[in-house]
Amino acid sequence: MTTSVGANDLRARRVGVDTYQEPVIYMHADCSVCRSEGFTAQSRVNVSLDGRSIDATLNVVHGEWLQTGEAGLSEVAWRRLGAAEGVAVHLSHAAPRASFGHVRAKLYGHELQERQLEDVVADIAGNRYTDIQLSAFLTACTGNRLDLDETVALTRAMVEAGQRLRWPYSMVMDKHCVGGLPGNRTTPLIVAIVAASGLPIPKTSSRAITSPAGTADTMATLTRVDLDMADMRDVVEQENGCLVWGGAVDLSPADDVLIRVERALDIDSDAQLVASVLSKKIAAGATHAIIDMPVGPTAKIRDDGAADSLARLLTDVGEHLGLHVSVIVSDGKQPVGRGIGPALEARDVLSVLQDDQQAPDDLANRAIELAGRILEIGGAAQEGCGSDAAAQILASGKAWQKFQAICTAQGGLREPPTARHLHIVPADREGCIEVIDNRRLARVAKLAGAPGVAAAGIELHARLGARVSEGQPLFSIHSDSKGELAYALTYLNHQESIFEVVESE
Amino acid sequence: MTTSVGANDLRARRVGVDTYQEPVIYMHADCSVCRSEGFTAQSRVNVSLDGRSIDATLNVVHGEWLQTGEAGLSEVAWRRLGAAEGVAVHLSHAAPRASFGHVRAKLYGHELQERQLEDVVADIAGNRYTDIQLSAFLTACTGNRLDLDETVALTRAMVEAGQRLRWPYSMVMDKHCVGGLPGNRTTPLIVAIVAASGLPIPKTSSRAITSPAGTADTMATLTRVDLDMADMRDVVEQENGCLVWGGAVDLSPADDVLIRVERALDIDSDAQLVASVLSKKIAAGATHAIIDMPVGPTAKIRDDGAADSLARLLTDVGEHLGLHVSVIVSDGKQPVGRGIGPALEARDVLSVLQDDQQAPDDLANRAIELAGRILEIGGAAQEGCGSDAAAQILASGKAWQKFQAICTAQGGLREPPTARHLHIVPADREGCIEVIDNRRLARVAKLAGAPGVAAAGIELHARLGARVSEGQPLFSIHSDSKGELAYALTYLNHQESIFEVVESE
Repeated sequence: MTTSVGANDLRARRVGVDTYQEPVIYMHADCSVCRSEGFTAQSRVNVSLDGRSIDATLNVVHGEWLQTGEAGLSEVAWRRLGAAEGVAVHLSHAAPRASFGHVRAKLYGHELQERQLEDVVADIAGNRYTDIQLSAFLTACTGNRLDLDETVALTRAMVEAGQRLRWPYSMVMDKHCVGGLPGNRTTPLIVAIVAASGLPIPKTSSRAITSPAGTADTMATLTRVDLDMADMRDVVEQENGCLVWGGAVDLSPADDVLIRVERALDIDSDAQLVASVLSKKIAAGATHAIIDMPVGPTAKIRDDGAADSLARLLTDVGEHLGLHVSVIVSDGKQPVGRGIGPALEARDVLSVLQDDQQAPDDLANRAIELAGRILEIGGAAQEGCGSDAAAQILASGKAWQKFQAICTAQGGLREPPTARHLHIVPADREGCIEVIDNRRLARVAKLAGAPGVAAAGIELHARLGARVSEGQPLFSIHSDSKGELAYALTYLNHQESIFEVVESE
Repeated sequence: MTTSVGANDLRARRVGVDTYQEPVIYMHADCSVCRSEGFTAQSRVNVSLDGRSIDATLNVVHGEWLQTGEAGLSEVAWRRLGAAEGVAVHLSHAAPRASFGHVRAKLYGHELQERQLEDVVADIAGNRYTDIQLSAFLTACTGNRLDLDETVALTRAMVEAGQRLRWPYSMVMDKHCVGGLPGNRTTPLIVAIVAASGLPIPKTSSRAITSPAGTADTMATLTRVDLDMADMRDVVEQENGCLVWGGAVDLSPADDVLIRVERALDIDSDAQLVASVLSKKIAAGATHAIIDMPVGPTAKIRDDGAADSLARLLTDVGEHLGLHVSVIVSDGKQPVGRGIGPALEARDVLSVLQDDQQAPDDLANRAIELAGRILEIGGAAQEGCGSDAAAQILASGKAWQKFQAICTAQGGLREPPTARHLHIVPADREGCIEVIDNRRLARVAKLAGAPGVAAAGIELHARLGARVSEGQPLFSIHSDSKGELAYALTYLNHQESIFEVVESE
């Protein structure tokens, strides 16, 4: 037996276990609190300390590495509680989550009311759902099971569960890409062009979810991105735009919780996607958003029918919530630019801004089209003249100046890192490149270390439609460790060709 | 750095953590395998040893209680691998479960084929789905989303994923209650009556899913229930019947995996319910099954419409799979008998068998009706005379003799335990009891510790229609720990009255 600090109190101990986002508490099987409360493995336990409290999943320890008077806390539990070694934490049964009754009702086909979705989202944002419950909620929303009203209510609830930025401008521009296309790093270019035109574009971006790089990952190789709200506001007031990581400003926190389980399930329902994207935009204070939607057989959106219905839902939900949404469908058949991975994409961005001769045209042209549309919507260019205006801002060097100014305001512009190992993958025959598999290419980049290792990824040396000779480089793998390089190559060797080279007859 | 036993090999270490059914592997953050394989927290890792292999969820350890060369294994991972301290285990990325693609297809509205359901069920029975995936599968089947063909296919797949009992009798009787009515513990009585009549009734029962007690929980307070197949067969050959826990004989093992997550979600879809019930019956070798279906506003089945559609599905699926199913709808407006909870229900069963003056009539009458129907179906009584025959077997003491004989054959009859704490809940006014809320009453019993704590639960002192005076006991809460008692009382104090007492004018 141990001396408890009080009935149902145990001494906090940091056991240093990373359970990702699900808080776990470790208690010894012989612990008096375990016994008196009837806790068993997987019990949900409320842990409180100085007015803060979390619900954690119990793992019961029979080994000797934990004492009976100790409450071992996983890393996320430790952080959320703000615990210190040895302080007394109070334990009780976690209250059942009443809002899960609404999820159950949805499973049985009932329509959810706004108030019910607010309760559900508040509990999700507060990390009070277990993984099993999160999975059930996501599944209940998949396959067109949320109607328009429910999707609007879900989006609004997600906005209201977090912080909300307000700007002193009548129009606030934003931009999003529904993803699935490696290297499509237009956002830094668009922000530079739009901000240079004088329109406000306070851009918050996410880190990669399933891709080799997110805009926040790429920008982090060039400048500081973890600005808090006050710093972000200063940058925007000074430069009309910013390029920061959204995670530091707590916009739509429920989204970050849901995304983790969505990734594990590998599902992505339209309703969830719309609520995820639009809640971030609305919380960031946007009034107008351009959505880039690449369509292609190996992109996230595979055909025009899927693109149409998603575009309609984005526009309709936006309209209900006072956000003007324009969707631009783009070609999603192959990667954009040359680099795939945080630093390699940053180099593409810099080369376009600096009007380098080697700059990838496709990336520049996409950015010009999207930025041009924003200029038209914002009244900085006449209808039909937006692309020309955007191209002019880019060619004149004003966008590059603005980009440098934004990076300086965020904490200084720096050089992206370079990888230590490089491996060139050549064509195994002469012919014409007819297909590039985006998904498997992204997988190789991730195995090489992206986005965790900023310098890692893929550099493309040839594009769709190009004629290549045998042995000509198709792409290079960049990696910082030999182990990761070997891992990417092993995967590559077990795949059909990622580039389909068809011999001419 | 540590010396690895081989590339991607680590030394197994039992860290003594009970994570219930989900295997967890603990690896140090600085471990070479973690790094070279790119494993991060929550990665799914395949762990193999001597040809056995399991998929486990990774928790990354930053603390010093685990060394870099060690693979810490949770209790369930240790057991399933058959590991020994210090042996080398081999680690690799867990293969994605191809069958989960079928679950995803179902989420998007596709009908599942028999072969696909077989793949899903085989992976579930083999513990190869994560909790998140199990939750998604259950959710995908909820709300009438499986049609008749799919339900038949699911049931068959669940039968085939486990062992199957075969009996040398032309008719094998079985019985099930769809539940939701606390205290409705007729099964031990029915088995005793039917076996005493000479008809074979080899009964396997489950532990509680969402209720305060299952038949296996109740019987476990009276005798040994974890018999293996050979022992069970011996008991049945000798006594015509048995009352064992189904979990020890590996009938429909996927059901046991699913039930754990169903319990956490507190959902119970018609298709899953039918597949669960009938797969157990068919695997147990039954040819005829009686299903007791209590209907009431706070029972599991709330109205006649729901009862009809569930009864039809049970009968239809049974017919497709060669099992004759008879459904008997019963009154589900209030609990049955006096006790709610394993030991308290066992006492009710004993009092009926012993023809005690205090024995609850309602429990006896229900058992007589259901057993009577089985006697008629089995030809042990003429049509219309089953209840009289059953009542006669009970009154004569033959059922009590048979029950004792079965318990003796299973390992000996014992006395159910008694709780340490008792709290009486009195009527707060004079009047007539007009409504009893089964669900909330069951919840109080569970908060008091049932079914985990066998002695815990509720004892009823008054029934529907009774007149009570102010202060007269309505029910008592039995609990083995003060913490659990306090928890039940806290819940009770936050509820409307569970007994609705209406004052006379």
